[in-house]
Amino acid sequence: MRVEIWSDVVCPWCYIGKARFEKGLAAFAGRDGVEVVHRSFELAAGAPREAGKSVAEELKAKYGVDDAQLRAMEERVGAAAAAEGLGMRHDRFSTGTFDLHRVLHLARERGLQDRLLDALYEANFAQARPISEDDTIVDIAAGAGLDADEVRTVLADDTAYADAVRADEKEAAELGATGVPFFVIDRRFAVSGGQPAQVFTQALEQAAAAGGLQTVAAAGDDGAVCTDDACDVP
Amino acid sequence: MRVEIWSDVVCPWCYIGKARFEKGLAAFAGRDGVEVVHRSFELAAGAPREAGKSVAEELKAKYGVDDAQLRAMEERVGAAAAAEGLGMRHDRFSTGTFDLHRVLHLARERGLQDRLLDALYEANFAQARPISEDDTIVDIAAGAGLDADEVRTVLADDTAYADAVRADEKEAAELGATGVPFFVIDRRFAVSGGQPAQVFTQALEQAAAAGGLQTVAAAGDDGAVCTDDACDVP
Repeated sequence: MRVEIWSDVVCPWCYIGKARFEKGLAAFAGRDGVEVVHRSFELAAGAPREAGKSVAEELKAKYGVDDAQLRAMEERVGAAAAAEGLGMRHDRFSTGTFDLHRVLHLARERGLQDRLLDALYEANFAQARPISEDDTIVDIAAGAGLDADEVRTVLADDTAYADAVRADEKEAAELGATGVPFFVIDRRFAVSGGQPAQVFTQALEQAAAAGGLQTVAAAGDDGAVCTDDACDVP
Repeated sequence: MRVEIWSDVVCPWCYIGKARFEKGLAAFAGRDGVEVVHRSFELAAGAPREAGKSVAEELKAKYGVDDAQLRAMEERVGAAAAAEGLGMRHDRFSTGTFDLHRVLHLARERGLQDRLLDALYEANFAQARPISEDDTIVDIAAGAGLDADEVRTVLADDTAYADAVRADEKEAAELGATGVPFFVIDRRFAVSGGQPAQVFTQALEQAAAAGGLQTVAAAGDDGAVCTDDACDVP
């Protein structure tokens, strides 16, 4: 069973939703047969990396909320994070995330994608580190087990893994995702949003009950097949 | 809709099945929304490339068939090919195909996979060209639009796209494929064997009727989602 999770590094519900999903997965009997793949989604598509841009100022400018509304929003999301044992600093930064997704694709090739995503979430939300900056990204990635020089090389080359990021985003659109987190099980069942853990457990159980591939036509009289042993000839 | 086709370059039912599938696809109303991906499967896993090994001698040695049995087999498969307008020479060669699959993965990255697979089938089955040989492979690939130097570089480096070939083969095993061609629609419906065209049309219609993703839980009260416009906070 394969779960694909579209998310963005600066999306608080992705951060909270990942923890909730993992709790839901832990309660699923078939958890050992589940492969998790993280896929790219930029909330602000094509936005550049930008140093020192505070989330608070961005939210106020973008949605016209005042300080009191902003505080109330942040308190609700902070409480949801705290309920999962996650930190959420209100003085965190905002940035375009295309380059971060490129590095996450490098990490995927190295088998370190999940660890790097956790580390980026932690750095961004719990520690309010400036994840727009090369040195910070390299430091976080190295802490997750990646080779620092390799990360610098990817950051310096705009084209590295760029197609992989765009391919993920194209697939999200094709699957009907308009926001994140977006969870897809076996390309068959979708869960949208950072739902409670038990919703994920139920979705996994539903996918397991639905079974794997449905055979429309097996090799036989009309359709021949070759195996290592022989090519049947009807 | 996405159709993945596991096949091997030296598998006659893959060659015939591809033509039948394409005929079935052409009769499917939703054909414009279908993406086709070719995946690797070696009939003789790990076998090296080998020059000048005739299929006839291999079949006789491997299955103990005599000349008359061999002729009868080849006539049946040749008739099935001819019915699809495809040539089938009985003096064709056999070879390990790992390197050919590696080049097919290069072609996939260049958007030329389908063209290269057609060209390899044509060269192998209809023209009995020695597809074990570097110069022949490069010539065929260049004819399909690939850069000859790039193909030579991939052939010379055993590790290039090797993981991609093995990943395809691992997935085939996980999906229960024991022979090829093996067609999978949206990771949900399987057709095994080079079935008649109408079987493929029906399978595509069945997959279309089954619809796309089934939403288990939509973003709402319990599960929040971030979009480009806002992060909902429940």
